[in-house]
Amino acid sequence: MEALRSAQAAASPYLEDIPLDEALERWWAALAEAGLDGLLPGEPVTLDEAAGRITAEPVWALASSPHYHASAMDGYALRAELARGASETRPVTLAVGEQAFYVDTGDPLPPNTNAVIMAENVQLRDGAIEILAPVAPWEHVRPMGEDMVATELVLPANHLLRPQDIGAAAGSGHARLAVRRRPRVAIQPTGTELVEPGSNLRPGDIVEYNSLVLSAMVREWGGLPTRLPALADDYAAIRARVLEAAQTHDLVIVNAGSSAGSEDFTARVVAELGQLLVHGIAIRPGHPVILGLMRIAGAPARWVPVMGLPGYPVSAAVTCELLVKPTLARWLGQSPEPRPRLDAMLTRKVVSAEGDEEFLRVTVGQVGDRTVATPLAGGSGVLMSLVRADGVVRIPRGQQGCDAGSQVSVELYRPLETVRRTVVVIGSHDLTLDLLADELGRRHPGARIASANVGSVGGLLALARGEAHLAGSHLLDEETGEYNVEYIRRLAPRVPVVLLGFVQREQGLIVAKGNPKQIHSLAGLTRPDVVFVNRQRGAGTRVLLDYRLRQAGIEARAIQGYERQEFTHLAVAAAVASGAADCGLGILAAARALRLDFVPLDSERYDLVVPKAFYGSEFLAPLLRIVRDPAFAVRIAALGGYATPQIGQVLAELG
Amino acid sequence: MEALRSAQAAASPYLEDIPLDEALERWWAALAEAGLDGLLPGEPVTLDEAAGRITAEPVWALASSPHYHASAMDGYALRAELARGASETRPVTLAVGEQAFYVDTGDPLPPNTNAVIMAENVQLRDGAIEILAPVAPWEHVRPMGEDMVATELVLPANHLLRPQDIGAAAGSGHARLAVRRRPRVAIQPTGTELVEPGSNLRPGDIVEYNSLVLSAMVREWGGLPTRLPALADDYAAIRARVLEAAQTHDLVIVNAGSSAGSEDFTARVVAELGQLLVHGIAIRPGHPVILGLMRIAGAPARWVPVMGLPGYPVSAAVTCELLVKPTLARWLGQSPEPRPRLDAMLTRKVVSAEGDEEFLRVTVGQVGDRTVATPLAGGSGVLMSLVRADGVVRIPRGQQGCDAGSQVSVELYRPLETVRRTVVVIGSHDLTLDLLADELGRRHPGARIASANVGSVGGLLALARGEAHLAGSHLLDEETGEYNVEYIRRLAPRVPVVLLGFVQREQGLIVAKGNPKQIHSLAGLTRPDVVFVNRQRGAGTRVLLDYRLRQAGIEARAIQGYERQEFTHLAVAAAVASGAADCGLGILAAARALRLDFVPLDSERYDLVVPKAFYGSEFLAPLLRIVRDPAFAVRIAALGGYATPQIGQVLAELG
Repeated sequence: MEALRSAQAAASPYLEDIPLDEALERWWAALAEAGLDGLLPGEPVTLDEAAGRITAEPVWALASSPHYHASAMDGYALRAELARGASETRPVTLAVGEQAFYVDTGDPLPPNTNAVIMAENVQLRDGAIEILAPVAPWEHVRPMGEDMVATELVLPANHLLRPQDIGAAAGSGHARLAVRRRPRVAIQPTGTELVEPGSNLRPGDIVEYNSLVLSAMVREWGGLPTRLPALADDYAAIRARVLEAAQTHDLVIVNAGSSAGSEDFTARVVAELGQLLVHGIAIRPGHPVILGLMRIAGAPARWVPVMGLPGYPVSAAVTCELLVKPTLARWLGQSPEPRPRLDAMLTRKVVSAEGDEEFLRVTVGQVGDRTVATPLAGGSGVLMSLVRADGVVRIPRGQQGCDAGSQVSVELYRPLETVRRTVVVIGSHDLTLDLLADELGRRHPGARIASANVGSVGGLLALARGEAHLAGSHLLDEETGEYNVEYIRRLAPRVPVVLLGFVQREQGLIVAKGNPKQIHSLAGLTRPDVVFVNRQRGAGTRVLLDYRLRQAGIEARAIQGYERQEFTHLAVAAAVASGAADCGLGILAAARALRLDFVPLDSERYDLVVPKAFYGSEFLAPLLRIVRDPAFAVRIAALGGYATPQIGQVLAELG
Repeated sequence: MEALRSAQAAASPYLEDIPLDEALERWWAALAEAGLDGLLPGEPVTLDEAAGRITAEPVWALASSPHYHASAMDGYALRAELARGASETRPVTLAVGEQAFYVDTGDPLPPNTNAVIMAENVQLRDGAIEILAPVAPWEHVRPMGEDMVATELVLPANHLLRPQDIGAAAGSGHARLAVRRRPRVAIQPTGTELVEPGSNLRPGDIVEYNSLVLSAMVREWGGLPTRLPALADDYAAIRARVLEAAQTHDLVIVNAGSSAGSEDFTARVVAELGQLLVHGIAIRPGHPVILGLMRIAGAPARWVPVMGLPGYPVSAAVTCELLVKPTLARWLGQSPEPRPRLDAMLTRKVVSAEGDEEFLRVTVGQVGDRTVATPLAGGSGVLMSLVRADGVVRIPRGQQGCDAGSQVSVELYRPLETVRRTVVVIGSHDLTLDLLADELGRRHPGARIASANVGSVGGLLALARGEAHLAGSHLLDEETGEYNVEYIRRLAPRVPVVLLGFVQREQGLIVAKGNPKQIHSLAGLTRPDVVFVNRQRGAGTRVLLDYRLRQAGIEARAIQGYERQEFTHLAVAAAVASGAADCGLGILAAARALRLDFVPLDSERYDLVVPKAFYGSEFLAPLLRIVRDPAFAVRIAALGGYATPQIGQVLAELG
């Protein structure tokens, strides 16, 4: 232990969390001292490469536009004074080619003319035109400089070029523009366990995708990323590669090795090559972040900024946004737009460490007149929490969390309009809900489902609290033998709902391929050589299990593994597939998905519970049309293990 | 006339404006009939090409992540049951390598272990560890499938891929994704008068930049634009090129020739090659828009959509957004996000044609507690109105405009936060204000100035109505010989303001190079061979002129051109440069900018008038710091014709 401790100390000069603000202050101060906090220089680009780039200099008009007095109509150019007093009774006649000249729109006014009369308003006779009304000077003329006058400011410096800006630059005489050079960012993945996406995975392998995520972010923020090939945890190799990358990049990101473990070399590399400014930031996810400057020998010597970002994917993405984005923005003269914000009611209590600033990923939905934010499960290793998130709630340091029902301010990841079009589904999860989500997005671009998997009971309670548009439920009432109705009466008594038929699915024992332990019924679960994996309390499958166990007179505590809870059918199947358990109760689709065997026990109803407030609404109509579409039932049947005899039928109206 | 009429009729089958909704209905119906309203097929891309593309298929997890039970800590993996009952007084000892196994974070759990105890919490002795507290099963373990479980839905179809989505695809076993093919859009500029950006301009030349603007838009909306070389107005050449482009593109845009003039061939080309659906849409800017389908021979024959967009740059950009954007979105399975909206008070009355839907470009600013929208001057030829615009107000058909003071809903072109950080400057324009705008954007990324040029009197009236943060003013009081003070008292009596010194500038007669008409004083303006160009009523320069004329006993009506008004110094100089006038009163900087000669008459004060409500505010502080910075005065001096003896000084406090 002592040996381990001192090995760690050698590997990492220190790891001490400081607040985010303080870390950024140290960063800006060190960049300023090294002369690295200024704007990047300009480089010339042609106009068709310029969109999305940022002006390095103000764009002054080189030419006026139009650069001549231009006719704004098809007609005749003339001197307005010549038509003075013209009327229907006293028309003025002008010789074409001498006093009046035919012009198309855009043609320059001939010398000594100052107005245009529309072709429709003259009579053409024998090489002359007759004018029946006077003309004001400059009528139907686009005077020189109407759009831009030479020397005027067309675009300021540090301006993000939009399509119309490119046109204005061209119109004012430019063929190329000076735009800020893109910051070059090297991204160096480290880790002996890393393999390329798509590799055949062996235990212990980790797919290296953080560099893909960080690259895409850097590109989105105007930088030019270089994804370097991954390196093993090898101090010398990392040191050499980082030094090499520093020669040609404005910023080097090492991912990861930023913690203080025995194979975390990043801090040591930074400290040896220059100056370690920060090691550890008190944010969650985040923590093991390194900020530093490397000294590159030369005449004169240069400093190159370096960051070590944590290896967990959510931590890497969140810290990249908090640290790399503002750095690139400063170099590009941009002010990052803050994300749109939305006030929402938190649906679940959240506990956070008092010493950390917490970045809580949430889904957000508009349920009736309430905006609700539901925290997403999963730590910094669960990238899907960032994929599913509609936004983030910042819980400041010194606060131990937020109570359920409290008002929070959400920084939105998605446009507000998308959030408003999100159908919030809370309850028991089923594969067919994924299918429904996919189908909704296909048929109605922009519409989507955000589903939270909290089990059937959790879903009904969410409906009772007004936190969801609908819930999936498969709760068997032991006394009536009926599904869902009694539970709805008990758990959501004040919410009038429609119980809508959805699917019937086979429940059974998921067992390893070939059923090696030969488990054929619930009775087998109590055998000493059998390890079970359970679903969480409140899940319909759990209710079904307990019901069947009581019927069979089997005591729960006689079952090894009864206490181990998983939250989805697929997680149960995964536990069996990995050998962590010998069997679990679940659906055929999950067993098939992981190529496991299945011992059918029961067929159960999985219904949708829809509050009447939404059932007839325009908001939910697109989703309900899909549920009733026979083509959708065909897609469900293709999964196997499902029947849909009552899909789309109203089974009961309650409340 | 008859001949012209029938020539036009031949060139264009018809040009009859229909409402936008109706035009889009015809378009969608025709696309549907031709089988062209569906989603584009998918094409495979590697993950580092995938960001910003759109999924063509749902992405299902191929692998679980982690695909094994992984240690979440550096420590010892063990079977939790073995540590049951461990305490400080009764430690449990486990043999390392037999019962407990050292693991780094991310390592797979060795067989027959189900928990990890942190290295810090054990004592290491003689190849064994001592455990002082029990461990829960699955503690410090990331179970298989914690992030994604094989077969679950990772991303739906038609999903715009963000950085984290790329990571999730990689983590769930994908190395490439099927993304929707980008719609290929050909953009064909037509017009005999067109020249490339940066060309030496002759009268009648028009810089072809619409294709740059349209390309950048198409690219922004996910399409793949092809900018074809411009063609002269030549029916056969256009027909041949359009047919050729249709072979390899999903949409062909012809710009312009979409009106009904003698050289407008687009409608005829479309009608001859297929089906002309729409010719003319009742929108402003817009009008001469063509929608059609071309029939491309082959087995089977195909239809290719074609659009003719108007030539005026604002019309081209506006109609492209209204028609091309939704078409590409439909092919890509996207729902275009509506722009953010903001309610604002219109500062000026706007008249619009009752038969048209009007798209009014406005600047928007937050002045105190009012949000004000100021219409931008300029027709569909003034691209700068689209560059300067903060948003657009739609005035529906059947409405003849909006009154000053009415509430309007603005669709914002810029993020709300940018609009909130915009300093609204209304009043007399000066080149030094452009310099101030550039400097503000350089020093404070994201901050900007929106300036409306309405003359000094207009600016003071805008301050009186609470529509601006500050005004530039150079109004000489004839009686006191003092600048601005009396005018402020009269025009903005209820607004307490600070009069802030800014620049002194030379006013004089702007004349052609070499002063060919030998004009040396105001007396020369009444000569019959001299044409003058005036500034608009209310402009400080106009006040100065009228004051000097009275002093000199010269009657305004004796001056030829006194009635011709221009709105800026540079526009006056441009009129002289073009030969439209022989001289005008203006500032040296404007004369220099267009390489004209200058006859100095006077030096005048140009002050900034700042309401006290903003003068001490944090909002205006960055701008006022620049005004007081000697480095800024140096930049002004470099323009020539300016002195800054009182810049940044408070000259008076009023009200």
